[in-house]
Amino acid sequence: MSFVVRLIVAYDGTELSGWQRQPNTTESVQQKLEEALARIEQRPVSATASGRTDAGVHALGQAVHLGPPEVDVPLRSLVLGSNAYLPPGIRVLRADRMPTGFHARKCAASKLYRYRWTRARVVLPQEARYVAPARASVDVGAMREAAARLAGRHDFSAFAKSGGAHQQGVRTVTGIELLELGDELRLEVRGDGFLRGMVRAIAGTLMEVGQGRRAPGSIDELLGGDGEPPAAREASGPNAPACGLTLVEVDYDAPWQPLDEGFPSSDR
Amino acid sequence: MSFVVRLIVAYDGTELSGWQRQPNTTESVQQKLEEALARIEQRPVSATASGRTDAGVHALGQAVHLGPPEVDVPLRSLVLGSNAYLPPGIRVLRADRMPTGFHARKCAASKLYRYRWTRARVVLPQEARYVAPARASVDVGAMREAAARLAGRHDFSAFAKSGGAHQQGVRTVTGIELLELGDELRLEVRGDGFLRGMVRAIAGTLMEVGQGRRAPGSIDELLGGDGEPPAAREASGPNAPACGLTLVEVDYDAPWQPLDEGFPSSDR
Repeated sequence: MSFVVRLIVAYDGTELSGWQRQPNTTESVQQKLEEALARIEQRPVSATASGRTDAGVHALGQAVHLGPPEVDVPLRSLVLGSNAYLPPGIRVLRADRMPTGFHARKCAASKLYRYRWTRARVVLPQEARYVAPARASVDVGAMREAAARLAGRHDFSAFAKSGGAHQQGVRTVTGIELLELGDELRLEVRGDGFLRGMVRAIAGTLMEVGQGRRAPGSIDELLGGDGEPPAAREASGPNAPACGLTLVEVDYDAPWQPLDEGFPSSDR
Repeated sequence: MSFVVRLIVAYDGTELSGWQRQPNTTESVQQKLEEALARIEQRPVSATASGRTDAGVHALGQAVHLGPPEVDVPLRSLVLGSNAYLPPGIRVLRADRMPTGFHARKCAASKLYRYRWTRARVVLPQEARYVAPARASVDVGAMREAAARLAGRHDFSAFAKSGGAHQQGVRTVTGIELLELGDELRLEVRGDGFLRGMVRAIAGTLMEVGQGRRAPGSIDELLGGDGEPPAAREASGPNAPACGLTLVEVDYDAPWQPLDEGFPSSDR
């Protein structure tokens, strides 16, 4: 039977240069993972993610496919072997066999990102790697009102890292929520795709709303629509710090479902 | 007005040698904190905790008193100044003025410790510093039954690091609970005092129960009572790994309450 292996990978991005292999650093997740896989397979193995994450950004469930050529070692060896060779900040959580033609990026139906702030005066050492600081006085209601305006199908070019010129900027945000959990403010954004830097630009813009420096209604002007073009990147807020951002999960629709139970199997 | 300053301190114990200043390491919380305070006060300042924590153990709310002599810089400067000089793994969360005679250890009415395990096959990098691994098959019901037998006033010498010979081993566990939170197993133990290594020995013993290597009822023999002496340390289970343990909070009864609102004040 022919198949493509999909890995689910978690990483603490604090000391990493992001997903993508870079010429001048060895600290990318892709390079570390491909090196570990090459040691197991005894030949070069390519790993392709559902999308890049930038330096400092974390993942709880990045989806990655291996090859071509097809990787053929048992899934159990892939998971346990990779983790033996990977640094402690990167873990392969599981491996599944997917139907031939599966591509981690092209087949992705949606992704969930989480952005976390804390309003605590002093950030706990146990949380400092994963949250950005926010003032206790931020107007959460105004941030929610602004967030709701981002839901739906829009041209998000004003929130894209490299501008909208060479990139089609239309994406659909299928869900956006701002939760209050004690001192924590947690933004969860689900969408069918994200432009580069989009969630951090959204988080930074919403924080400007929370600080009273921008009206919730100004979001509409950034998105354009009704014949109006979207605003330039400079019109939206600054990128929120990378440490607050986590790629939580990547979802795939039928027919892109695992062919069997994978490793580890779900039964306890 | 005369007073004693109390600090609430959080730390990630992973790279620390524990609370207590040690001759051959500079990585103790006490030394780092006393060095930071000395820079603010421009003279040596002694910091006394509610109790030692061992190397690798974390704290969310360790209580510490300063002096004598009395420390007199504004609380705000103490908190913000300390955090400017402390490594990122140690944070002073707040400072309060307490009545004269306050002593962080002697006045403590109770402490809450948390021990965390994960039953996940692969531990998330974001959690690995704070949880110990456990098998998915552990018998949580049996662990709960054993834990319940620890509640109350007993001689806990069988769970003490250096044996019970030179140490009065009677303590009261006022609450003990084992929570299931997804893959996580979380033990919370509240007591009026703890022997050295007591929570890790309890956690290790309960894990033996969970693995079916010890009956829940065997806890009674470890504690003694009804004229029977407590068992020796060797009779109970091994210490659970330090990384799973966190000192959550220390409580003080009246009259040991703050004299004013402290810093930061609780109002948003």
